[in-house]
Amino acid sequence: MEQGQRSGSRPAEPGPCLSSPCGADQAASVSLLSAAGAEPGSRTLAVAAVLPAGGCGRMGVPTPKQFCPVLERPLISYTLQAMERACWIKDIIVVVTGENMEAMENIIKKYKHKRISLVEAGVTRHRSIFNGLKALADNQPNSRLSKPEVVIIHDAVRPFFEEDILLKVVTAAKEHGAAGAVRPLVSTVISPSADGCLDHSLERARHRASEMPQAFLFDVIYEAYQQCSDYDLEFGTECLQLALKYCHIKAKLVEGSPDLWKVTYKRDLYAAESIIKERISQEICIVMDTKENKEHIGHLLEEVLKTELNHIHVRSQALYNAGSDIQHINLEQCCNFVCVNVKEPDFQETQKLMSMLEESNFSILYSIVVVSVHFLDFKLVSPSQKMESLMWIREFAKKMKKRKILLYGLLINYSQDEQKLQESLRQGAIIIAALIEERNSALIGQLLVA
Amino acid sequence: MEQGQRSGSRPAEPGPCLSSPCGADQAASVSLLSAAGAEPGSRTLAVAAVLPAGGCGRMGVPTPKQFCPVLERPLISYTLQAMERACWIKDIIVVVTGENMEAMENIIKKYKHKRISLVEAGVTRHRSIFNGLKALADNQPNSRLSKPEVVIIHDAVRPFFEEDILLKVVTAAKEHGAAGAVRPLVSTVISPSADGCLDHSLERARHRASEMPQAFLFDVIYEAYQQCSDYDLEFGTECLQLALKYCHIKAKLVEGSPDLWKVTYKRDLYAAESIIKERISQEICIVMDTKENKEHIGHLLEEVLKTELNHIHVRSQALYNAGSDIQHINLEQCCNFVCVNVKEPDFQETQKLMSMLEESNFSILYSIVVVSVHFLDFKLVSPSQKMESLMWIREFAKKMKKRKILLYGLLINYSQDEQKLQESLRQGAIIIAALIEERNSALIGQLLVA
Repeated sequence: MEQGQRSGSRPAEPGPCLSSPCGADQAASVSLLSAAGAEPGSRTLAVAAVLPAGGCGRMGVPTPKQFCPVLERPLISYTLQAMERACWIKDIIVVVTGENMEAMENIIKKYKHKRISLVEAGVTRHRSIFNGLKALADNQPNSRLSKPEVVIIHDAVRPFFEEDILLKVVTAAKEHGAAGAVRPLVSTVISPSADGCLDHSLERARHRASEMPQAFLFDVIYEAYQQCSDYDLEFGTECLQLALKYCHIKAKLVEGSPDLWKVTYKRDLYAAESIIKERISQEICIVMDTKENKEHIGHLLEEVLKTELNHIHVRSQALYNAGSDIQHINLEQCCNFVCVNVKEPDFQETQKLMSMLEESNFSILYSIVVVSVHFLDFKLVSPSQKMESLMWIREFAKKMKKRKILLYGLLINYSQDEQKLQESLRQGAIIIAALIEERNSALIGQLLVA
Repeated sequence: MEQGQRSGSRPAEPGPCLSSPCGADQAASVSLLSAAGAEPGSRTLAVAAVLPAGGCGRMGVPTPKQFCPVLERPLISYTLQAMERACWIKDIIVVVTGENMEAMENIIKKYKHKRISLVEAGVTRHRSIFNGLKALADNQPNSRLSKPEVVIIHDAVRPFFEEDILLKVVTAAKEHGAAGAVRPLVSTVISPSADGCLDHSLERARHRASEMPQAFLFDVIYEAYQQCSDYDLEFGTECLQLALKYCHIKAKLVEGSPDLWKVTYKRDLYAAESIIKERISQEICIVMDTKENKEHIGHLLEEVLKTELNHIHVRSQALYNAGSDIQHINLEQCCNFVCVNVKEPDFQETQKLMSMLEESNFSILYSIVVVSVHFLDFKLVSPSQKMESLMWIREFAKKMKKRKILLYGLLINYSQDEQKLQESLRQGAIIIAALIEERNSALIGQLLVA
């Protein structure tokens, strides 16, 4: 069952945690947990996580929702990516059906997830979680897993959470024995009578929706699962309730943020895709041949982008120190490049950037958008003439698409008329924003005109 | 308070109900309600609806969510559009704050909503609904509204419902006095103790989320609101509970579909936008100069579109009988046109179609996408040369954007090589699908190449 990919409690390399590189080590986790009030001493708290991912979902689609693609990557990979950001979690147990075991192994390989072990699911959610806990318990033959002090239980279909809520539930679990995130109810909850009529309605303010993540002292939740009845294992939905019923532990409830929601329906997949698109569109890196020349058209474009797209962080980068610069861009998690070409041949800068991106692994988790920008005074030369020389971009884009790099061309009117130039730059900024926000692979290789 | 726009119980014209024209009259409503078991006789059931829209929402954005734009149209307009489809609803009372009264009047004018009356909101949801009911009660001075037998209560922020669920709750309300749509719980509901710990969790299968729409015998719910306490009016959330408490009416619970969800968070706006985009992308109309010639390149494109976009309904239309054809298209709710230009001058068909669309009111509710398709053998003439002659499209598209018509150009390689031609057509189909699905106004006037 166990994956060969675990790299132990201290990952040897940062891994593909694009949005918050996992550079912290166990020592840092102690201080984090100490700051949160859990562990005033110096001993490291051993934490593992169990992610039940054996469900088949309610969406009425053949693919279980945890494996549904969001921007071409399975949803569960986003959840694992978010979980991996917490470097102080030693082991992440993913519980999947035998049927999906191989698919899950491939996901882990493809997206280079670390610290993951796979365990086979049971027929219900509770049985699956129990299987995950068993794998973590002491004395498992041939297991390289060790029993944690605290275990986090989280859903594979809740990819949007911050490390902060993990810390909060782990800290509260250490203190109270059990803890779980809760949210206000969106709808009033009612209790029907046997004939399908209203029996009574519950006061909305006095109840909460129980969400994930939850955390437990391992011994508490393992004991509860060992004690609990077949009825619980078949029909139960709430781990906190098991801890209460069988170990008399009253779980601490932690108010969570709205992003703890669970992807349940098809509309949730739409929402997830839009949220992820928005997140990876927050930064644009303008690449040009030099940063020294203040009059450089690249800087003019940069200014207009900053003004027009005021919700997006725009910065620029010169390509002369190639290697180290791009490394730097990686760490700052940029998925969007605007490449300004001013020298002949037309595409020198773009080709430089593309070969760097090709060599890197930037596009493992997210597609990379590159807009190759070219300037031309439309009064002197017709844009269609310039297009002739830019037709190379069509074939080049097809090739790069296989590497998940989406290349588009943009021709901007470099008018001598200051007002017209500004208008073209503004138009160019709007087109750039649209290409980045949509990340539409159907339009790669196109030459757009501003 | 009352809007001057009411057209009585039988609208004089179909109205802007693009997705299901409201052509039925009262007689039809009787038969519908009879079929549903409500009214075996011949008397027409008088039904009105109250939509509380006075809330300020939880999204933490300055605009109340019912007024948030979705594809540039306020969310509440979609809800009204869905409500208007049920022609047997005589009056639709929208309850808004005094502050938003003018904005709401403008929405009704702009999107030509019918049968709407505006009423000023109270400070809580229950007080707002009560105000709406008062406007419908007998003996209101200067009111043209008459008391209905059954009243529907629905949220302004639930735009996705079918007429079917309205019929079901109205029918059940007629029989039981009250009825409401319910859905299974997504999360387990728990009850916290005073110290923020778990007191107990509710069995998920024994509870339901109370959703909207609900319906009541008018006299029942009006009586309940008149009787109920200030505490109920301040803190209550459930109309069904008021009917139970004050009129001893046990509401019938009707299992609803997942699309009854309420737009609550920012992510829900994303989901709503994607759902609407998907709905209006379900149909493409190919317009060409003739339908007779089976060898026409337009038919080849049609075949490829049908094969490549097998989830979309593709049909073709010749423009010679202009007026009546377009009228026909309107009734069949098409928002997407692919215009095939084969004759000189280049854009004859596109211009014909555009002037028809301009004269019509098709784009009141949704933007219309028009892809102007042109063919050229790239081996004989460079695409950039053809582009020269198609530059007119840039200025034309800017002009049409003001009418919410999004015009794009597409140049397809009309190769003599059969395989290459098929590949270009296939590429063209993918680009057309992307343009229709995204409806991105930043890319209008661009000339794309397949």
